[in-house]
Amino acid sequence: VSEDELQERDDPSGETDAYALDNRKVGQILGAVELGAAERLDELLEPLHAADIADLLEQIAPGERRDLLALWSAGIDGEVLSELDDSLRAEVIEYLPADVLARAVRALESDDVVDLVEDLEPPQQGVVLSALEEADRAAVEQALTYPEYTAGRLMQRELVMAPAHWSVGDAIDYMRAEEDLPEQFYHIMIVDPRHKVIGQVALGRLMASRRDVRLTDIMDEDFVPMPVTQSQEDVAYAFNQYHLITAPVVNEDERIVGVITIDDAMAVLSEEAEEDILRLAGAGEGRLSDGILETVRRRFPWLFVNLLTAIAASVVIAQFTGVIEAIVALAVLMPIVASMGGNAGTQSLTVAVRAIATKDLTGSNALRVVRREAVAGLLNGLAFAVIMGVVGVLWFGTPVLGAVIGIAMVVNLVIAALAGILIPMGLERLGIDPALASGAFVTTVTDVVGFFAFLGLAAVLML
Amino acid sequence: VSEDELQERDDPSGETDAYALDNRKVGQILGAVELGAAERLDELLEPLHAADIADLLEQIAPGERRDLLALWSAGIDGEVLSELDDSLRAEVIEYLPADVLARAVRALESDDVVDLVEDLEPPQQGVVLSALEEADRAAVEQALTYPEYTAGRLMQRELVMAPAHWSVGDAIDYMRAEEDLPEQFYHIMIVDPRHKVIGQVALGRLMASRRDVRLTDIMDEDFVPMPVTQSQEDVAYAFNQYHLITAPVVNEDERIVGVITIDDAMAVLSEEAEEDILRLAGAGEGRLSDGILETVRRRFPWLFVNLLTAIAASVVIAQFTGVIEAIVALAVLMPIVASMGGNAGTQSLTVAVRAIATKDLTGSNALRVVRREAVAGLLNGLAFAVIMGVVGVLWFGTPVLGAVIGIAMVVNLVIAALAGILIPMGLERLGIDPALASGAFVTTVTDVVGFFAFLGLAAVLML
Repeated sequence: VSEDELQERDDPSGETDAYALDNRKVGQILGAVELGAAERLDELLEPLHAADIADLLEQIAPGERRDLLALWSAGIDGEVLSELDDSLRAEVIEYLPADVLARAVRALESDDVVDLVEDLEPPQQGVVLSALEEADRAAVEQALTYPEYTAGRLMQRELVMAPAHWSVGDAIDYMRAEEDLPEQFYHIMIVDPRHKVIGQVALGRLMASRRDVRLTDIMDEDFVPMPVTQSQEDVAYAFNQYHLITAPVVNEDERIVGVITIDDAMAVLSEEAEEDILRLAGAGEGRLSDGILETVRRRFPWLFVNLLTAIAASVVIAQFTGVIEAIVALAVLMPIVASMGGNAGTQSLTVAVRAIATKDLTGSNALRVVRREAVAGLLNGLAFAVIMGVVGVLWFGTPVLGAVIGIAMVVNLVIAALAGILIPMGLERLGIDPALASGAFVTTVTDVVGFFAFLGLAAVLML
Repeated sequence: VSEDELQERDDPSGETDAYALDNRKVGQILGAVELGAAERLDELLEPLHAADIADLLEQIAPGERRDLLALWSAGIDGEVLSELDDSLRAEVIEYLPADVLARAVRALESDDVVDLVEDLEPPQQGVVLSALEEADRAAVEQALTYPEYTAGRLMQRELVMAPAHWSVGDAIDYMRAEEDLPEQFYHIMIVDPRHKVIGQVALGRLMASRRDVRLTDIMDEDFVPMPVTQSQEDVAYAFNQYHLITAPVVNEDERIVGVITIDDAMAVLSEEAEEDILRLAGAGEGRLSDGILETVRRRFPWLFVNLLTAIAASVVIAQFTGVIEAIVALAVLMPIVASMGGNAGTQSLTVAVRAIATKDLTGSNALRVVRREAVAGLLNGLAFAVIMGVVGVLWFGTPVLGAVIGIAMVVNLVIAALAGILIPMGLERLGIDPALASGAFVTTVTDVVGFFAFLGLAAVLML
């Protein structure tokens, strides 16, 4: 991005729209596409950052995308490809002439190529791999042997190593002479003769030191080595927790095989948080660029699970049709108890799911947290029992109805709080992602308990 | 952290517990505290990373925390203080002897001191500020004049600048001679005589270049300057979107006043995602270290809003008591329609809220997304209409009841999808955080529409 371009986007008046592609620019681009004005299109796209071009391709309609690519396919480079959402990448690669594709992928670092090809179908994967030079292809194929979502997939193999006996001057001379340094690197890895990392030196530190200082005297020994099979979630956690910029990736023999830099860890952190949010809402991996059928397909399963939950609640209600026929006010008030339980359960459950993800909920505080949730549920339950008791009496003039709804509220809010914390903890222990499955279980519990407590109490006290 | 320490935590068998403090270690630490064994405590805490010590303090009970601090207060350094959760920081600072506190804060970079003092009450803030040296205090006080949650608060003032006419050799000689380089830096900022940034040079690039190369020949002009008043959310977005490592912060005259590095942006990104998740669930800024009353206080408002929503739904039901008395099966089935609507609404709303946060939902695709949501809602509505129609007939043997619930389902799922996308977009336009308020509005709509459609149709078709 040129600076003018950014100044424009940084317009201090439109705070929330800083950096978003503005409508006017999108309109100009689509206008050029419609007119088939290839030169004008180049001119408009040239100053944009690859990430913004990728966003543009995701946001426009499929027909517009086809036309834009037809007119501009020569302009697509590796960076745009690697910024694209997985769901669109295969489609875009289809459009690219073989030579454009080859040029695009050859310009990328190995970790970006891995990221690019790992979600492609075998025929397209083959096309991309065959565009690479022999050594790079071998490196990418090696990376693909590591399980998905692990440090091995995330790392770049390009790194700068130095033996422990080198001085600052040796390292600088080596880097000056080396033709093929990584495009981005912030640390030199200090290794022993078996390529085991013994420390890392930040480039800033190297810069500040005299040529005759030994690397081992300025190296940082508080580095965090990551096993190649470490999950990407744990990699991102470690970067955020320990403020890492670079971390060495090591194989089972503790030999260094690559490095991960913070920008990749940041992308993972943001994806993982996104995934948790969408899973908690039962929206799967939903994306705005999904088509209608894709959207239906992603949301149906959760709605179906919810239907089963709701039917379970209905079965409970069906046991009490006699009371409802006698006192129809129960039908009016009964959704309130269930809904309050559902919401209280969701609060506890969300806090628990995130605390598990951020490793803040552990064996050492689990008991205390469960107790806190139960007592907090009890106190909020009491508060709402009083409020709803009064509402019940004022609305229907029946003190015993007020008592029934009040007691049911206390019971359901305590159960909701406990279910909200115990269910995610249990699922986590069973190795099931608590973000994915907790919601359905918690709602079932709060619906069933809510209707049963309210209607059951009414049957006992009011009939 | 020492390497052994990390090897232990990286135990490949306990994947999900990589990096979490293990129970055994916590037990040993609390054991030492109980025995008053100060030396043993030092020995146990010394190898831990400041972030892990902060987590430990957050996870143990308040009494244990008090005892630990009493025994170990001399060991607390600036890093532990700056890793601590805001809610605990004031409490911990209370315990520290003045000299320990002074030593701790003097060791921090200016951005960390700002982060440390901004949430403290004035008396404590004064104590910390007065512990700083004159120049540092002025710098921190200057930073505090910028609004909270902006680039100005986030940036560090320590940076390395070079004039445009320097060569690589000049820059290296300058850095060697300079006593007071920032502790961490990855780029040199190239500035014109008025301190306007014209490019930045990555240290790796500098290393790889000959001494006589001019900085302007190797500088990167695609840097992203951030105005001091830029919101921290937009700062984090730009780092993630453009894969930045360092960004210059500029004042209204475009002079550079500081830099932001990616590790701080990553922390913001993770906080903002966390905030969205908790707000969507109505759990406020809830944290596991909150006490019981704090938890009650944070959750009550959302539950109260939900109560009003639920009462609104009850008022709708109250209009149809005649139908319910006549056909009690309606009371049994009615929560299903409302609950399906609520869930479908939450799915759309979550996708919309996140798309707004990640700037993927913009003027150029809003219409298409709304259309997609409506059609997806219609299709899922039709699918569940058929399923529930059949269930209704099989369960109660009344075909018209099946038709009523089927039609109500279609209506509610379409409305849910539209409300889920239009309400967050509307709130965003009004300047209200859609994560905070959308849920209550959407549930109100789906409850009211769900009960009204189901019971109203029943009144028309079945009475």
